[in-house]
Amino acid sequence: MLSLVLPKGSLEAATLDLFDAADLAVRRGSDRDYHAVVDDPRIDRVRFLRPQEIPQYVEQGLFDLGITGRDWITETESDVVSLSELQYSKATGQPVRVVLAVPMDSPWRSAADLPDGVRISTEFPAMTRRFLDQHGVKAVVVPSYGATEAKVPDIVDAIVDLTETGSSLRKNGLRVLDTLLTSYTEVIANRGAHADRQKRAAMEDIVLLLGGAVRARRHVLVKLNVAAADLPAVLALMPAATSPTLMPLATGEHSAVEAVVPKATVNTLIPALKAAGGFDILELPISKIVE
Amino acid sequence: MLSLVLPKGSLEAATLDLFDAADLAVRRGSDRDYHAVVDDPRIDRVRFLRPQEIPQYVEQGLFDLGITGRDWITETESDVVSLSELQYSKATGQPVRVVLAVPMDSPWRSAADLPDGVRISTEFPAMTRRFLDQHGVKAVVVPSYGATEAKVPDIVDAIVDLTETGSSLRKNGLRVLDTLLTSYTEVIANRGAHADRQKRAAMEDIVLLLGGAVRARRHVLVKLNVAAADLPAVLALMPAATSPTLMPLATGEHSAVEAVVPKATVNTLIPALKAAGGFDILELPISKIVE
Amino acid sequence: MLSLVLPKGSLEAATLDLFDAADLAVRRGSDRDYHAVVDDPRIDRVRFLRPQEIPQYVEQGLFDLGITGRDWITETESDVVSLSELQYSKATGQPVRVVLAVPMDSPWRSAADLPDGVRISTEFPAMTRRFLDQHGVKAVVVPSYGATEAKVPDIVDAIVDLTETGSSLRKNGLRVLDTLLTSYTEVIANRGAHADRQKRAAMEDIVLLLGGAVRARRHVLVKLNVAAADLPAVLALMPAATSPTLMPLATGEHSAVEAVVPKATVNTLIPALKAAGGFDILELPISKIVE
Amino acid sequence: MLSLVLPKGSLEAATLDLFDAADLAVRRGSDRDYHAVVDDPRIDRVRFLRPQEIPQYVEQGLFDLGITGRDWITETESDVVSLSELQYSKATGQPVRVVLAVPMDSPWRSAADLPDGVRISTEFPAMTRRFLDQHGVKAVVVPSYGATEAKVPDIVDAIVDLTETGSSLRKNGLRVLDTLLTSYTEVIANRGAHADRQKRAAMEDIVLLLGGAVRARRHVLVKLNVAAADLPAVLALMPAATSPTLMPLATGEHSAVEAVVPKATVNTLIPALKAAGGFDILELPISKIVE
Amino acid sequence: MLSLVLPKGSLEAATLDLFDAADLAVRRGSDRDYHAVVDDPRIDRVRFLRPQEIPQYVEQGLFDLGITGRDWITETESDVVSLSELQYSKATGQPVRVVLAVPMDSPWRSAADLPDGVRISTEFPAMTRRFLDQHGVKAVVVPSYGATEAKVPDIVDAIVDLTETGSSLRKNGLRVLDTLLTSYTEVIANRGAHADRQKRAAMEDIVLLLGGAVRARRHVLVKLNVAAADLPAVLALMPAATSPTLMPLATGEHSAVEAVVPKATVNTLIPALKAAGGFDILELPISKIVE
Amino acid sequence: MLSLVLPKGSLEAATLDLFDAADLAVRRGSDRDYHAVVDDPRIDRVRFLRPQEIPQYVEQGLFDLGITGRDWITETESDVVSLSELQYSKATGQPVRVVLAVPMDSPWRSAADLPDGVRISTEFPAMTRRFLDQHGVKAVVVPSYGATEAKVPDIVDAIVDLTETGSSLRKNGLRVLDTLLTSYTEVIANRGAHADRQKRAAMEDIVLLLGGAVRARRHVLVKLNVAAADLPAVLALMPAATSPTLMPLATGEHSAVEAVVPKATVNTLIPALKAAGGFDILELPISKIVE
Repeated sequence: MLSLVLPKGSLEAATLDLFDAADLAVRRGSDRDYHAVVDDPRIDRVRFLRPQEIPQYVEQGLFDLGITGRDWITETESDVVSLSELQYSKATGQPVRVVLAVPMDSPWRSAADLPDGVRISTEFPAMTRRFLDQHGVKAVVVPSYGATEAKVPDIVDAIVDLTETGSSLRKNGLRVLDTLLTSYTEVIANRGAHADRQKRAAMEDIVLLLGGAVRARRHVLVKLNVAAADLPAVLALMPAATSPTLMPLATGEHSAVEAVVPKATVNTLIPALKAAGGFDILELPISKIVE
Repeated sequence: MLSLVLPKGSLEAATLDLFDAADLAVRRGSDRDYHAVVDDPRIDRVRFLRPQEIPQYVEQGLFDLGITGRDWITETESDVVSLSELQYSKATGQPVRVVLAVPMDSPWRSAADLPDGVRISTEFPAMTRRFLDQHGVKAVVVPSYGATEAKVPDIVDAIVDLTETGSSLRKNGLRVLDTLLTSYTEVIANRGAHADRQKRAAMEDIVLLLGGAVRARRHVLVKLNVAAADLPAVLALMPAATSPTLMPLATGEHSAVEAVVPKATVNTLIPALKAAGGFDILELPISKIVE
Repeated sequence: MLSLVLPKGSLEAATLDLFDAADLAVRRGSDRDYHAVVDDPRIDRVRFLRPQEIPQYVEQGLFDLGITGRDWITETESDVVSLSELQYSKATGQPVRVVLAVPMDSPWRSAADLPDGVRISTEFPAMTRRFLDQHGVKAVVVPSYGATEAKVPDIVDAIVDLTETGSSLRKNGLRVLDTLLTSYTEVIANRGAHADRQKRAAMEDIVLLLGGAVRARRHVLVKLNVAAADLPAVLALMPAATSPTLMPLATGEHSAVEAVVPKATVNTLIPALKAAGGFDILELPISKIVE
Repeated sequence: MLSLVLPKGSLEAATLDLFDAADLAVRRGSDRDYHAVVDDPRIDRVRFLRPQEIPQYVEQGLFDLGITGRDWITETESDVVSLSELQYSKATGQPVRVVLAVPMDSPWRSAADLPDGVRISTEFPAMTRRFLDQHGVKAVVVPSYGATEAKVPDIVDAIVDLTETGSSLRKNGLRVLDTLLTSYTEVIANRGAHADRQKRAAMEDIVLLLGGAVRARRHVLVKLNVAAADLPAVLALMPAATSPTLMPLATGEHSAVEAVVPKATVNTLIPALKAAGGFDILELPISKIVE
Repeated sequence: MLSLVLPKGSLEAATLDLFDAADLAVRRGSDRDYHAVVDDPRIDRVRFLRPQEIPQYVEQGLFDLGITGRDWITETESDVVSLSELQYSKATGQPVRVVLAVPMDSPWRSAADLPDGVRISTEFPAMTRRFLDQHGVKAVVVPSYGATEAKVPDIVDAIVDLTETGSSLRKNGLRVLDTLLTSYTEVIANRGAHADRQKRAAMEDIVLLLGGAVRARRHVLVKLNVAAADLPAVLALMPAATSPTLMPLATGEHSAVEAVVPKATVNTLIPALKAAGGFDILELPISKIVE
Repeated sequence: MLSLVLPKGSLEAATLDLFDAADLAVRRGSDRDYHAVVDDPRIDRVRFLRPQEIPQYVEQGLFDLGITGRDWITETESDVVSLSELQYSKATGQPVRVVLAVPMDSPWRSAADLPDGVRISTEFPAMTRRFLDQHGVKAVVVPSYGATEAKVPDIVDAIVDLTETGSSLRKNGLRVLDTLLTSYTEVIANRGAHADRQKRAAMEDIVLLLGGAVRARRHVLVKLNVAAADLPAVLALMPAATSPTLMPLATGEHSAVEAVVPKATVNTLIPALKAAGGFDILELPISKIVE
């Protein structure tokens, strides 16, 4: 019922892994195929296209649903419904950002300091022009087709580019002057399709499954046994958001406790649980969590 | 006690993965060894050979047990006991088939239309000849050693070849005229060894473990909590063959439900369970299922 | 609070996998970095160095905690506290050994038989000299920088070298005359740091997590249902060290049994459990076990 | 004295090979560096950039000399001096072409047949719009970022794309309707720099060396001995443009003949030379030819 | 005019290299294409097929010319014209042989010793049967599809297989009992095509070029200068089959000497030439030699 | 007659390439073999060993001839005869050096400034101790087993290490304080073997061939024709060390000139030769040069 477009290129492998984990495995004849199928009654067509092109195609109704980055949605000013952000990677609090970067030793302290005629290279010319207009800067925006950060200072004076940790900018002698956008990978939908009640329900199911898989990657299931006397101390250690499940054991005085906890807390939680009287502590991997 | 022969070549990696998952890990000095061992009291000899040759060797009693494809059992007309079909891959309703294929634009609509003297290339000459005899076709069967589908039309007029999705045939301008055989990977046994009571018991254990691992790949464990009022609705959603386990929770009014469900149904089941009142829904991976 | 030194080289990948499994993931800019971080409140500095150098640096207090082999601790006669042995690999009862090896056809039956002036090549010259002194042998010890086993007989008469399965020795026409040391990978600590109560508590937590991950690799969680009548037979089959958890099922006459069992026993245990009346038997993977 | 910009991406490896063969080896810290040096007194700065961007930068005087494709010079309508075409590959009469391609079964026979509103995907939007204007077609030009040929028919109705052999077009069910441009790799110069006498002399030396290396790839040195009587017949066989060198041999009645001949003619020339009385025929590889 | 079939598989890369060196470069869309072209006026069709199948296709006239091994020509008893043996590799006096091999410790000393009913595995069943008939042995010939040498002793008693150095046989505990065939790669022609005068001339040209390239791989061109007094000593050192070219130098008393010599003799020849008074000695690579 | 030991490890591939180019191809069963053969009547045994160990074994007479670095000859103070330096790489005037390096921002300006008790890590402890003794520095020398440059400042205060371009030192924040040794790869001989007249002659032949191949890599053969009038100008351009060969052409007024010139001069030489009246200029590759 839904047609779906997925990003070719740098997001491709991570997207396929996530759909696989969400029990929405995408199957193709080969890695280079642009058409695919998903064994799901709600998805009848799957296509791979460059992330730059996806927002427009979803806006135009060529596809009901798409996966792409917020950067390209903003660059193309596409009118689509954003259903969810997907955090693919396990770690890193720092999201991808689109930033204005200038040479380390330049005198500029804010975007407004940029002189008229400043040359700026970017893969996001529209977003860059809008941003500069807002700051009253009259710049020459030079479209870039890659390796933007290596064009300063001989080709341009500044750049607007994607950065994750900033290390590539630093390596090229640049510092961040301003942030235009913080960009996540998003699930987007066509407005018309989303207004259709049946299609919206199907979209919500897909988002539920994707979100459940993303969540599962950051959590584990902890199981342990505990004597009645130690139970309060053990429960007190469980992270706030957790609702542990208690089960009486056949052997009377002990209880079994199960709780889903963030993977990032396990390194301190497990020693603490043992110190509080927990025993036979097990950590099990989870494939999906839907609360 | 049992001697075992495994297929070298295209089935090799999948077979090793399956034995590993079945806790029957096959260990070899190197990937190119033809001899191996399994740490199991029931298996005393492991050998790798081409799948073409395996049916004959099992029939002749050189091995008690073997893994090979139905295609080669049929081609060689071997008299062996088939203990089980193994479905290695997670997905795909379409099994491997041995088909008769002809050029897209040829006039033939059925095997019987083939003219006398038609040239047919195949890796399965015996099976092909039997099939053509049944249809009263007098063909020149040309044995092939690979790339059969690329030999039409300059070398031969038609082929008999393995196909999974048919895409390689289409890419070579061929269409399927008839299907000679649908072929699965099978566990086969020597008739004499299978008549021996002790050996048969050992064979059944091996098949139990392999089957348990195959089954686990297609299922997951779903756990959830549910209020008493919603329990009937939740149970009603569980696939027919499922026998959910119910456990009372320490916190009175809720129950914990656990069920092994087919992985292929999870994409629709989890949204439905949530809609029916299930909460704290977890999906866990399984390594083996024995009912 | 703790500074940690990890081994560069052949143990590196396995050490990183283990820390990852222990929820102590080590993050580096690139594979060739010598500095890293662990997201853990107890570890504030991580360094990679050659395993040969690690025992001395831990003894000298440059690091609180280190991972290296017993072979290098002994070779350097470092005065450190050994907190735990880590068995990285799943299988193989045979640990790594430092052995004295001589040609197959040499007349020597024990170390004491070696004649004065015998030439011995080794990467462990200090350990070798101490060993030979104990046996009253006056040898020429030739330091080796690799491929020691290929130097007999044209360069030296015998070697002292690491061996795991002995196959490399045999391939070079050598046999083991004596064993100088059985060597495991160990977690070692600086004496002063270990005497500090707070640091020792932190060390014990780290060892608990590492040990829990190592243990989990060799075990699985088996779950099954059983009728009351068959329960004693099922419990009798469980390995001795196992303490199965029993849970009453909502459906009266059946019980659910869960037990952590060694992976190596599963191939015989599961068929036996089924024969004893167990049903709906599941095997689940485990990430960590803390008893 | 000269600054030079080389193309990053698909032309990169071939360009580096050619400069190496021209004794103008380009050295970089790593394959991913965007800056490099050449050990040559005439070149003081080397830069790698995307071929799309190079024509503009050379026009603007950011570089004196550049290597890029005619396709991008035309797309960007850059005003530069073209010094030489470089034919990198040994073979293939068919140059790269920018073509308008439509579905095999479409009714259109020329560009003028395209209906108003036709959707066309391309990496060359400017060139495409100019071409369509000339043919009076009002099209929607959709910029493409790769895999253009896989977008027909569901995304667009036609494409303008690069093609070498046309096989990728055919595989996607497309046929060529018209050719917009035949494109070679070219050495281009900035107008101002080229007007500077000293710079122009340096440019001519570089082009001489590059051309000498390109030429050497397509030629070989043939040496042979011949009796005086057969000399005229042998010389008559030499390709027209060839000026063979004759040397008297010490042994009186024979001559040695040497000639540089096109590699492509060797397969017919050598048998003919032998038939005409040539003997001791040798073919030697050449590194550079400057006539 | 000629159609040509080349061997797919183990001989493929070496064949392509040789045709390239012979200035008959074979071009394909990709490595997996089965059709190709050669830029030569005498060759109008090029096809890749398995070497097993080539002799028959050439006999049947599907191709005029083919490259395959003598082993398959003999096995298939194809009636073709053999135009030339090609020695692809630089070194090794030992050609490939088809041998009868038996276990090291078997009592048999010649083929005739083999008992009736002996089981022999081979990829050459026809050749094997003919050979055994000649020796009066009644054997069970078991067709093999690879790894023949690893089938003794549990599957068969002996094998007939290809061997180059014998090391694979030895590694499998086998020794050679008899040699059925010494096999080179050959250029073969269809009888009818070869009888056609024009086609035969074209074939001879192709063989001349291939042979010239093979010969060039084993030779180098040595150039040196020498004083008149030392000339006889220098010439006396040149290998017997060599006809050195002498050229007077402009500088009177010296001569330039050039000779094509076997690469294998250079390591002793060059020091000897220098000792005899040669100077400015150069060694140059050669691409083709036609005498 | 001669036994030869070659370096295992980082010099291995370059050494094998050089022996191949010298027509002394080294053949081994596999890349990991420690024994090899050379098809040369003067070499009867070839062995691979670590470069650290080679000087001692050659001194002790276990081998007649060896290839290793000057760094290890000096470190081990071995008494061997050095026959030749081998410059493997085409480029780089900067040889490998063993240097004393300290942090960029340290106050020390010469080795003598180092304070007593300074900690120095190195793979060359003996050479380091001798050097520090000469400068009156009392240091703690810490043996290193790799990654020495990454140990400053947390493990040691300074290092003695190999450097080629200095870039790895700079990347680790170090600067060179002093140079202990400039190290080339050398051909070394055992004193006794070298005193044997026949063995010395054989050694000189080997060195002649190796040197001829090294020299050939840095030179090319330039051939050109020139009119009598232009001959003096053309000859004047030839590099000083060159002795061009002049040959009269059959066509009277022109001469052929041939000269071996350094590859590094070709980029300026060829344009100059053309400007001076040279024509039909060819550059040919050379395999060996013996003057």
